[in-house]
Amino acid sequence: MTSNNFKPNPEHKFTFGLWTVGNRGRDPFGDATRPSLSPIKMVKELSRLGAYGVNLHDNDLVRIDASPEERNRIVREFKQALDDHGMKVPMATTNLFYDPVFKDGAFTSNDPGVRLYALQKTMRSMDLGAELGAHIYVFWGGREGAEVDAAKDPREALKWNREALNFLCEYSMACGYDYKFALEAKPNEPRGDIYLPTTGAMLGFIATLDHAEMVGVNPEVGHEQMSGLNFYHVVAQAIEAGKLFHIDLNDQKGPRFDQDLRFGSESIKNLFFLVRLLEESYDGPRHFDAHSYRSENEEGVWEFAAGCMRNYLILKQKARQFNEDAEIQALLAEIHSSAPEYSEPLGAYSRDRAEKIKALPLDRTELAAKKLPYERLDQLTVDILFGVR
Amino acid sequence: MTSNNFKPNPEHKFTFGLWTVGNRGRDPFGDATRPSLSPIKMVKELSRLGAYGVNLHDNDLVRIDASPEERNRIVREFKQALDDHGMKVPMATTNLFYDPVFKDGAFTSNDPGVRLYALQKTMRSMDLGAELGAHIYVFWGGREGAEVDAAKDPREALKWNREALNFLCEYSMACGYDYKFALEAKPNEPRGDIYLPTTGAMLGFIATLDHAEMVGVNPEVGHEQMSGLNFYHVVAQAIEAGKLFHIDLNDQKGPRFDQDLRFGSESIKNLFFLVRLLEESYDGPRHFDAHSYRSENEEGVWEFAAGCMRNYLILKQKARQFNEDAEIQALLAEIHSSAPEYSEPLGAYSRDRAEKIKALPLDRTELAAKKLPYERLDQLTVDILFGVR
Amino acid sequence: MTSNNFKPNPEHKFTFGLWTVGNRGRDPFGDATRPSLSPIKMVKELSRLGAYGVNLHDNDLVRIDASPEERNRIVREFKQALDDHGMKVPMATTNLFYDPVFKDGAFTSNDPGVRLYALQKTMRSMDLGAELGAHIYVFWGGREGAEVDAAKDPREALKWNREALNFLCEYSMACGYDYKFALEAKPNEPRGDIYLPTTGAMLGFIATLDHAEMVGVNPEVGHEQMSGLNFYHVVAQAIEAGKLFHIDLNDQKGPRFDQDLRFGSESIKNLFFLVRLLEESYDGPRHFDAHSYRSENEEGVWEFAAGCMRNYLILKQKARQFNEDAEIQALLAEIHSSAPEYSEPLGAYSRDRAEKIKALPLDRTELAAKKLPYERLDQLTVDILFGVR
Amino acid sequence: MTSNNFKPNPEHKFTFGLWTVGNRGRDPFGDATRPSLSPIKMVKELSRLGAYGVNLHDNDLVRIDASPEERNRIVREFKQALDDHGMKVPMATTNLFYDPVFKDGAFTSNDPGVRLYALQKTMRSMDLGAELGAHIYVFWGGREGAEVDAAKDPREALKWNREALNFLCEYSMACGYDYKFALEAKPNEPRGDIYLPTTGAMLGFIATLDHAEMVGVNPEVGHEQMSGLNFYHVVAQAIEAGKLFHIDLNDQKGPRFDQDLRFGSESIKNLFFLVRLLEESYDGPRHFDAHSYRSENEEGVWEFAAGCMRNYLILKQKARQFNEDAEIQALLAEIHSSAPEYSEPLGAYSRDRAEKIKALPLDRTELAAKKLPYERLDQLTVDILFGVR
Repeated sequence: MTSNNFKPNPEHKFTFGLWTVGNRGRDPFGDATRPSLSPIKMVKELSRLGAYGVNLHDNDLVRIDASPEERNRIVREFKQALDDHGMKVPMATTNLFYDPVFKDGAFTSNDPGVRLYALQKTMRSMDLGAELGAHIYVFWGGREGAEVDAAKDPREALKWNREALNFLCEYSMACGYDYKFALEAKPNEPRGDIYLPTTGAMLGFIATLDHAEMVGVNPEVGHEQMSGLNFYHVVAQAIEAGKLFHIDLNDQKGPRFDQDLRFGSESIKNLFFLVRLLEESYDGPRHFDAHSYRSENEEGVWEFAAGCMRNYLILKQKARQFNEDAEIQALLAEIHSSAPEYSEPLGAYSRDRAEKIKALPLDRTELAAKKLPYERLDQLTVDILFGVR
Repeated sequence: MTSNNFKPNPEHKFTFGLWTVGNRGRDPFGDATRPSLSPIKMVKELSRLGAYGVNLHDNDLVRIDASPEERNRIVREFKQALDDHGMKVPMATTNLFYDPVFKDGAFTSNDPGVRLYALQKTMRSMDLGAELGAHIYVFWGGREGAEVDAAKDPREALKWNREALNFLCEYSMACGYDYKFALEAKPNEPRGDIYLPTTGAMLGFIATLDHAEMVGVNPEVGHEQMSGLNFYHVVAQAIEAGKLFHIDLNDQKGPRFDQDLRFGSESIKNLFFLVRLLEESYDGPRHFDAHSYRSENEEGVWEFAAGCMRNYLILKQKARQFNEDAEIQALLAEIHSSAPEYSEPLGAYSRDRAEKIKALPLDRTELAAKKLPYERLDQLTVDILFGVR
Repeated sequence: MTSNNFKPNPEHKFTFGLWTVGNRGRDPFGDATRPSLSPIKMVKELSRLGAYGVNLHDNDLVRIDASPEERNRIVREFKQALDDHGMKVPMATTNLFYDPVFKDGAFTSNDPGVRLYALQKTMRSMDLGAELGAHIYVFWGGREGAEVDAAKDPREALKWNREALNFLCEYSMACGYDYKFALEAKPNEPRGDIYLPTTGAMLGFIATLDHAEMVGVNPEVGHEQMSGLNFYHVVAQAIEAGKLFHIDLNDQKGPRFDQDLRFGSESIKNLFFLVRLLEESYDGPRHFDAHSYRSENEEGVWEFAAGCMRNYLILKQKARQFNEDAEIQALLAEIHSSAPEYSEPLGAYSRDRAEKIKALPLDRTELAAKKLPYERLDQLTVDILFGVR
Repeated sequence: MTSNNFKPNPEHKFTFGLWTVGNRGRDPFGDATRPSLSPIKMVKELSRLGAYGVNLHDNDLVRIDASPEERNRIVREFKQALDDHGMKVPMATTNLFYDPVFKDGAFTSNDPGVRLYALQKTMRSMDLGAELGAHIYVFWGGREGAEVDAAKDPREALKWNREALNFLCEYSMACGYDYKFALEAKPNEPRGDIYLPTTGAMLGFIATLDHAEMVGVNPEVGHEQMSGLNFYHVVAQAIEAGKLFHIDLNDQKGPRFDQDLRFGSESIKNLFFLVRLLEESYDGPRHFDAHSYRSENEEGVWEFAAGCMRNYLILKQKARQFNEDAEIQALLAEIHSSAPEYSEPLGAYSRDRAEKIKALPLDRTELAAKKLPYERLDQLTVDILFGVR
């Protein structure tokens, strides 16, 4: 395994949000440190680096106060750039958080006027996404939350949120847009608490929607880590439920403010299991929702983007190595082995089956004595991650 | 409001697990500090204090290696004590975590023998619970998790878990037990990570069960706080989805090890909103899953139990005061007011409705200018909590 | 205790940073929601509300690129406003974080040019503070940290930081400024990790300075809570070491991004112990480093400021009630009682004393049996907080 | 770099606590899963694996209620085993947490009888450690904390703690023991909050001791991570202050309950920087305070122990590679370069120097424009960790 093997190409389906490489380094305690990059420049550079496409919020491309003519000109030129560089826009989304109008929420604002404005803005943004060829529509409700629980009933907020999503599902179908919706959770920041704070909560919420089948999730590494959750487990639940419609890859230094670090630069072990899982069970875009350190100049932005893809490919290679390692596979076989009389699947309930199970002469001391060589297995995994095996 | 008004009685439906007042103060770094209490003693004392009932794991009442005769004698005597003191057993559950057999999980053990043993133990425990009159059956999978993600596929674990729950739903119905199942999440401890780590994840999982309608959640204050989540929001989602089947009340000093502190002793403001919500929308038992400080003797255990109920009743009284406060209600009316043209419910989708919304002349600057007096509202809430209003 | 008793006045020594009531609601995901307030307006309004003074960063008052003439005019007018409204400036500090020049640190920048610029800016800012009458000079090194540990040696960073502080101590003395320095810790945000992340780490660092006697700490509620620490304990250590030179009061919804919420609005119990401690052992300004919710207009900013002071005074009153409560004091006496043979202070070491202690016939079972009625004591505390006692 | 190169030997100074490989898998929700190992067996096996020595609490070796004769026999046999296997005991410590007598603290118990008992037990344990040849004495005050802040004044607790440590410093010197004391912090668990919760707080506390020069710190990876701190930064501060007297190496899945995982199995990147730092600046024992997963049998315990040492050696090799990498060193040179006029050290204060700095024509825009290629540098580091460079 040498350092030259990890070259991205469009078949890897790597995508970047325009807001990621376009991030200017502004933060709560400081001003922007980098100039703006034009969307067309970003398309060109990302294409050069081997990406498959870009994703966008409406206002990443078109200013919130653009005239229809401006809007159309911008979109036309952007499509031309996509064509010129062979780049796709697989996903689109709406900016429902930056403008002061959303200071107390968009779909869950206490003000029905704001809720209508959010709906209007989203429909227009869905039109834009469809025009650009997107088939996945992400919803991140960054302002759908509260600091003052006295002010907003979270049950009302859920109802308004559901109402909006039900409406927009219908809108998508009526327009023939063929969107899949992907809901993205985050526990807090910018709000004190955000409703539906985890991907798990989103899965629970989706089950209550009118068109649950067209709605899934868009888990983000750092957002779940902000709650201290195991991101690999989170994504596995989504996949097992058939609901992983999109994914936001980045990294994070543990539960604290949202950092959006270069994928694979921090949570090495957890992201190894993630990549192994995605390679087995997920076919969609590998979207990086991250940005370079605020201290970088433009050159560093492209280093950052290249590093995200490189780390994914390194982990993919290590996943292959893990799957092909004879000692590891032997250990896994040993771990999953069992007495033959217990090895048949449980199967459907029957009174007879229940009675038989209740009467089984299971010896808990004997069962407890089974060897579980997890230290060895984990060390072999770590050896692979370190490249010393 | 004086200190004598907060006397619990059975109508308040306060319940305690036998393991809560029976907790002996053992912890990872120290031995038990208190002698055992007999279940009968606990029933008697809790009844004296005004509780409605007790809940139990199978082995809280019957030792894991009791003979059938012992088991029957113990149950008979316990039922007599319940009758003598007018106490109920509304909820039962299985201990699937203490014995070494469960060291790598119960329903999600890699060993099918252990999974069968867990199923067997649960069916027998459901029989016991039904015999004691329980209608709620809680599942807390404390060992259903991993430290070594190489050793267990979380998707397999979810499948095994689902298989067991589907089987046990059928068992409950076949036996005519009329149980509602309530799934309890916890993010970690004793496992490095526990699968389905939040109540939200449980709601997502429930949607994939064969008999989703008979399965809900049992959120626990401290378990969600371990992930830094707003417990009031968590419970609101469960209620809004019709899934709050039971609740575990306690308290916690923030995201760290599981503490099971006296209800209302720490998270004063969040639990105020919780109690207000429960009083509006939840009719089941108010179950305390907590224990007294390890430094207490038996007398302190009863102080602890009394304090849990007292704090609930204090918060209930404050919820009433909040709801009746004229200034607060006026602020809420102001906050929820809107221009009449926007105040009708969104309603079902129609092409016409969508077109109308897209064409609305909404001025985002004007919408953003609406006054949101949340500092004032929050301060009034805090004043009520402090008893200075 | 009624709601009218909690009127602040200058004797309470309440102060606000210009950046607190002047906060415009800008955050990582959104633009400013409120217009600027002039420093003079802030002085006037805070005076009206009963505050004692205001604190400032150099650039809260004087733009970073102001000419000397502008600077002098602004300062002159500001001093006039202070005089007009009887307001003080007890504390000053330097903005070493907002401008892009500080993107990789100020005193710990890898670039010696930046380190010199930070020193230059701080000396000028100390001149300004002294001109305004400040006797406390706060250092918050918001950018003194790293995301990339490969890039900066934390030992070098500490040396640079020490060098700067040693230099500035001398500068202060040479100028006859009579400043006490107060170092403010924060664990992260805006940097991935900030050096000297806790008040404890600052105390350790201070012991290595040339003029340790003139340097203390400025703990901030939310900053320590971001690390999950008990703020009351943090401040108690600082006081016990004679190092509490200033304090930043605010509130926070647990370990997550920095929130700067209204003092007393969240961490009710912990802040009760804090206020009780401050009233016993701290004579300096009670400085609020917080800001109103982003959704407020100017009116809400003043509600916020009034609420900070009100909550302090409510907690102060409750501290008095706690101290005067006969049952509480009797419990505390019981808890601190002991067998007379053990009650003398340990005293200085002597061989004889050591031998005697080694030979004492201490019975650990008997010692363990002492009653510790902490549930009762804690419930009485909670009763006082709830105002039901 | 192949998997055979990482063989530990005594020159590496790897040590293990008897309580680590002796851990029986007991946890708050479950019973022991492994039988006891005799101290002699542990010495033998650890020697075989290449360790340098073992450390111990008094009661790891001698039961709390052993008679003097038993104590002497056990110690004699243990010393023989140490001799037989060429193993050292570099560090000793006191168990001041397991017995119920310590349920509300040892040196900070409200009961002076308990405080004297803790002092007595520690002096006896120091005698034992000295007899075994230990030169480092660790203090972990696991019970020195509180759940109920009303019950104990943290300032009193600090005074009692200081009194005990001052006394014991004298005791050590009077007995000619030549101990260095190393204080170990932990933020919580088993107590709700533990006093002096971080290594930083310990450094602050040490500065207040009578014999500060003989007292340093014993930072533990997981304990600082429980507070979300960067362990590499924590240790760097201790080293820079000359206070790293011992270290506890393990690993942790982020801020949650204390896990004591195999060193290097989780926090790969942070521990890389740690090992690089230790290899440059620390000469003492590399002590593992960790234990194997509860699901392991004895064989797994030795896998665990071998894995701790192996991961240290892997990281040590990678540190060497990093230091010798030409591109990395060139980047670091670039990052630390500066205009020659700024590159001289700041030096001591003088009025003249201050005036010169105040007058420097520093252009903040120009300074801000300096390239900081941290994405590239970090990616090269990650490449080394992955073994792909």
